[in-house]
Amino acid sequence: MTTPGAESLFDRPALRPPAGAAARLAWLRLARSHRVGPATFLRLMAEHGSAEAALAALPAIAASAGARNYTPASEADARRELETGHRLGARLLCLGDPTYPPALARIEDPPPCLWALGDPGLAARPTIAIVGARNASALGLRMTMRLAAEVGEYGLVVASGLARGIDTAAHSAALAGGTIAVLAGGLDCIYPAENAALARDIAARGLLLSETRLGLTPQARHFPPRNRIVSGISRAVVVVEGAARSGTLITARNALDQGREVLAVPGHPFDARAAGCNMLIRDGATLIRSGEDVASALGQTLPRRTVPNAAPRPEIASRTPPPRPGGDIRRELLNLLGPTPIAEDALIRRTGQPAGRIIDTLMELDLAGEIVRHPGGLVSRAVA
Amino acid sequence: MTTPGAESLFDRPALRPPAGAAARLAWLRLARSHRVGPATFLRLMAEHGSAEAALAALPAIAASAGARNYTPASEADARRELETGHRLGARLLCLGDPTYPPALARIEDPPPCLWALGDPGLAARPTIAIVGARNASALGLRMTMRLAAEVGEYGLVVASGLARGIDTAAHSAALAGGTIAVLAGGLDCIYPAENAALARDIAARGLLLSETRLGLTPQARHFPPRNRIVSGISRAVVVVEGAARSGTLITARNALDQGREVLAVPGHPFDARAAGCNMLIRDGATLIRSGEDVASALGQTLPRRTVPNAAPRPEIASRTPPPRPGGDIRRELLNLLGPTPIAEDALIRRTGQPAGRIIDTLMELDLAGEIVRHPGGLVSRAVA
Repeated sequence: MTTPGAESLFDRPALRPPAGAAARLAWLRLARSHRVGPATFLRLMAEHGSAEAALAALPAIAASAGARNYTPASEADARRELETGHRLGARLLCLGDPTYPPALARIEDPPPCLWALGDPGLAARPTIAIVGARNASALGLRMTMRLAAEVGEYGLVVASGLARGIDTAAHSAALAGGTIAVLAGGLDCIYPAENAALARDIAARGLLLSETRLGLTPQARHFPPRNRIVSGISRAVVVVEGAARSGTLITARNALDQGREVLAVPGHPFDARAAGCNMLIRDGATLIRSGEDVASALGQTLPRRTVPNAAPRPEIASRTPPPRPGGDIRRELLNLLGPTPIAEDALIRRTGQPAGRIIDTLMELDLAGEIVRHPGGLVSRAVA
Repeated sequence: MTTPGAESLFDRPALRPPAGAAARLAWLRLARSHRVGPATFLRLMAEHGSAEAALAALPAIAASAGARNYTPASEADARRELETGHRLGARLLCLGDPTYPPALARIEDPPPCLWALGDPGLAARPTIAIVGARNASALGLRMTMRLAAEVGEYGLVVASGLARGIDTAAHSAALAGGTIAVLAGGLDCIYPAENAALARDIAARGLLLSETRLGLTPQARHFPPRNRIVSGISRAVVVVEGAARSGTLITARNALDQGREVLAVPGHPFDARAAGCNMLIRDGATLIRSGEDVASALGQTLPRRTVPNAAPRPEIASRTPPPRPGGDIRRELLNLLGPTPIAEDALIRRTGQPAGRIIDTLMELDLAGEIVRHPGGLVSRAVA
């Protein structure tokens, strides 16, 4: 098999999307075949003209590269995947289809096909990615919810990765204005499981996307490719909170490589969770204080509008994930807390744990000097 | 009197500093004469060649501009000012003198002369201004002290305006590394009075500068001209904390007009006292997290060094100003506090009030729900 070199946007030949059921099946088979990544897919299509011809040529190409007994993905598996997807109500978007996200089609390594559940039209609207730490502070979560709701008022769709923390806050607050969640695994494998209800809401009112086969449980190596789709469907990436050496920061750097603008919310230099954002701003990212700043960074000329029939600004905590094992609850509470106080009630709703359990844990943390109580039922993390 | 237009740095004729006692006396008289500001001083010197000739021509120039009975400053007053200054141990630096601050000589409207008390050699070293709010938060004060001490380790002198808050913290922490305080009034009129001891320390180990006559009590209108000297003697201005519509921000904009680089410490968008800094960064100011960032912004190639015989990092609170009337103490404590907790002891030292009084006031504020107590004797301002 030849290893294709990187291709620029300009020397990529025009790709005709599959026409008809047989061509779609072959397209999916080629995309699912072992070692056929996006770049190889594009190269094979350019050399052989169709997925059928590429599939026929694949074993010989593999053998000439020293890979014996290479077998492309089977027709039966591809057929099963198509049937499963359609049973879920999902659509397969192939590169070149009019419903394929237009911005994503222009990245270096676009997914040959994507499963979509929800409204694929959302991906044609101006979109921004909001990303950040999974162990976000309450301040970071509040900022995310405000930003996500505000950019919706400027007609912007919010893309993110359905992860815990910033991603979850972004999707929840953007349901009214439009949101796209890109999954790292199969469309039927929601991760983390606690976001199953949120994913259902996004499928109903927004859009879920996944480039992997149905049934795939995501692993660590699937997250970077997912992140390239989050930024790939977006005009810009807003980083809300992220430490100096975080995955969030890698996502931001990769977005720059894709030619996407990077925007970042600043924080005080004494706040370690702001270190990544401050670093990005020093390196030229635009400093963001509000949805208006995001809109202006995009040269978004649409006037701010009220979302028709908009629900009241969503409260992320209204979503109740299933209870998780209790050993982590102290750590989870400490993670949620930062130097700025937040309401105890919001903590209870956010963790989805029984109130009594959170109250007991807060008491223990208080006795241990790890948190501080404030008037009005607020708590914050103690500062050494 | 002709109103001189703005002159660029390039068409200003070379100015010869006064040679000899009589010429210095005339120079000071001309500088102290009614309505003779820096631009007019320079224009008169260019047109008449010497201060003596300009003084002789002044009444006729004033009359031709419709000002009858114009009298230049008297020789007796100028002589008295020189004698008073010398009794204080101060030196008069005239524009063009080798001891005149070289960076200041190159601004649009340099002071014709400056009173200097301390080591004028400091003003020839690379200098940065550190400025910010008088009602700084404890976080802002800590950041200032860290920055001021750290830039000293890079060989940078710290200039500021001896005001309350950020200025005071900057000077105190920079005593070991070198600091210059520019006064808005006379060299013998320290304002605010609570900084008298700090001013004495700066005269002994650093440098005090003032362009106004001795004995002048500063008023509001004297602060903007003072601020142009703070930035004028500096390579760059670091803004540590300032609200959106603050005097600090005006100082920063004026510094830009002088061709000085503006640097700013970011903060979270939810923190109103960071709004000015975040705005500056959006407008192109370099984001600063540490003294290393400042040094790198200046292209300061000097390696970081330990200050010879450096005292331990100064604790601003070790300075005890005289007690002030008690009505303001609640407001002062609230001003000192922000969302991030600070030690009660430091508050006591910082206010210079008797410990019992601060403890009582903190108790009142606590009962009123305005502050929050944290483990370890820390307090912070309550967040609504």
